[in-house]
Amino acid sequence: MRAAVLREGRMVYRDDVPDPIPGPGQVLVGVRSCGICGSDLHFAAHTAEMLSLSEQIMASLGVSGMSVDADRDIVMGHEFCAEVLDAGPNTDTHAPGTLVTSLPVLVSTKGVAPIGFSDSTSGAYAERMLLSAPLLLPIPNGLDPRRAALTEPMSVGLHAVNKSDIQRGETALVLGCGPIGIAIIAALHIRGIESIVASDFSPKRRELAVAMGAHQTIDPADGSPFDTVKPKVVYEAVGVPGIIDDVMRRTPPGSRIVVAGVCMQPDTMHPFFAIAKEINVQFVLAQTPTEFAESLRAIAEGDIDVTPMITGDVGLEDVGSAFDDLADPERHCKILVTP
Amino acid sequence: MRAAVLREGRMVYRDDVPDPIPGPGQVLVGVRSCGICGSDLHFAAHTAEMLSLSEQIMASLGVSGMSVDADRDIVMGHEFCAEVLDAGPNTDTHAPGTLVTSLPVLVSTKGVAPIGFSDSTSGAYAERMLLSAPLLLPIPNGLDPRRAALTEPMSVGLHAVNKSDIQRGETALVLGCGPIGIAIIAALHIRGIESIVASDFSPKRRELAVAMGAHQTIDPADGSPFDTVKPKVVYEAVGVPGIIDDVMRRTPPGSRIVVAGVCMQPDTMHPFFAIAKEINVQFVLAQTPTEFAESLRAIAEGDIDVTPMITGDVGLEDVGSAFDDLADPERHCKILVTP
Repeated sequence: MRAAVLREGRMVYRDDVPDPIPGPGQVLVGVRSCGICGSDLHFAAHTAEMLSLSEQIMASLGVSGMSVDADRDIVMGHEFCAEVLDAGPNTDTHAPGTLVTSLPVLVSTKGVAPIGFSDSTSGAYAERMLLSAPLLLPIPNGLDPRRAALTEPMSVGLHAVNKSDIQRGETALVLGCGPIGIAIIAALHIRGIESIVASDFSPKRRELAVAMGAHQTIDPADGSPFDTVKPKVVYEAVGVPGIIDDVMRRTPPGSRIVVAGVCMQPDTMHPFFAIAKEINVQFVLAQTPTEFAESLRAIAEGDIDVTPMITGDVGLEDVGSAFDDLADPERHCKILVTP
Repeated sequence: MRAAVLREGRMVYRDDVPDPIPGPGQVLVGVRSCGICGSDLHFAAHTAEMLSLSEQIMASLGVSGMSVDADRDIVMGHEFCAEVLDAGPNTDTHAPGTLVTSLPVLVSTKGVAPIGFSDSTSGAYAERMLLSAPLLLPIPNGLDPRRAALTEPMSVGLHAVNKSDIQRGETALVLGCGPIGIAIIAALHIRGIESIVASDFSPKRRELAVAMGAHQTIDPADGSPFDTVKPKVVYEAVGVPGIIDDVMRRTPPGSRIVVAGVCMQPDTMHPFFAIAKEINVQFVLAQTPTEFAESLRAIAEGDIDVTPMITGDVGLEDVGSAFDDLADPERHCKILVTP
């Protein structure tokens, strides 16, 4: 089948990738739409570091790390909507043609693998892939596959907001209005937060932030956002070294920081800033199954309109150039791949 | 009057310090006992850095920093029990001779100053000092002044435990069994936590940890504590660069870290460790007035016996050598100064 694969840090188009074969409990699906995630860009740019850090964590927990051989092609893609094609042996599932999405994990006899970051299973930058029958969520309300594909990133934002336990009356500051910052803004908006302030250097992204629910935007080129706003909760969705320290230095006493940006490098901080102000830092990564289902429902019922986030569409042949294009925040937020 | 003062990083004995004069709302007290705190050792060793960091924080908040001129003598000491001697103009207070303690802050017409870290008010390494009448807590139950002086550090431990919101059934790991680590252990014990694990290189401090309520101790020279225990809450009471990163690397997914150790230096961490495991980090510093009062009550009623923590007594002349002696964890936990 056709697929876009990661090979030595670059996305390469192939038309000879073997078709996956569903095992017991698995479903073969045809990918209808897949979002390109910042994590995929990170993984392509820092494959060795990410695998090494993952191994260090897993070794410290006494379990094996990501099962990824960086010398082999990897099919990434974990924000998808797909159509049921066939089921494995002894597997009850939805009728062929049903549109579905799923948490990006595949259960097999070998265990649980993260879809899109594994040798043992392929992601959604491909014509077809495998999903786990018990995890399938049918797409409701005739929602189109392109918007349904944004369930995964929107649920990451919802999770960040849930973990922060922000309450009405508290001011939220969102640093960085890439897809995760935007997903956080949408989740804050649904939660009824009355003061959502968004900061980004890009005018386009600040516009998008307002479209998704921000009440005020700040261009950090004009000065620190903390000169303008005294937040109770800061959502850090930038993920570059130095930003956590800067937030600790400037945020008001007693505030909470949610780190949703994925900084892969070592980062230097001054614990004393955080100690003197009794700051809480909640690091977040993914989502719960409930949050995933809730995000799908919110998109399908129109509580969140993800349309303004979708800034491009490409085929499998052009995933490589889409990776490059995503570097420009003026042009792109979320690019969808249609196999 | 007689006092031990900080001068250019060293503790110096003087017998010519001017007597403080109580203003309105203030009370003159005679110090009966004062504990030497790790913060005092930190402040003496890193005066310039602490003042600079404090100024950076305060400037970012738009308020002035610690009002301390490092070129002038500073009277530290903020863990005290004292006897009421006299009151300022128009000030109602307890009868002369009443034993009292107080949160270490002094209210004056110029504002609120931290006792022990300020030019504008003296700490308790002195014969006499000023306290604020509304903040005085009389010492109940005939509790002796030496044990009452430990109210302040014990309340810091109680605060750390309260901020962690640890529940019965959750395992606590306390890293570092200096006075703050020990205060945390005592607070965990009172809260009914059934699995309190304490880690320290010093056999004496591990013994003390058991005396104060730890169920298990670990010598980190034998290997990482995380090889032995999978904590839900980690209390970091060491405060040296590198330890937060090590905890983030080794602690189980979803665990909470309470940073009670005061690391004054820049510190390098890998945010990815914390992100991948969705770790929460709560930085803590001081205590609430309620926690302070609760700690005094717990000591006075015998819920906490602080006696094993007291490892030495000195006069004002010997505060300097006591600062040096505290470097040896085999000999000392808490040294009390009796003016």
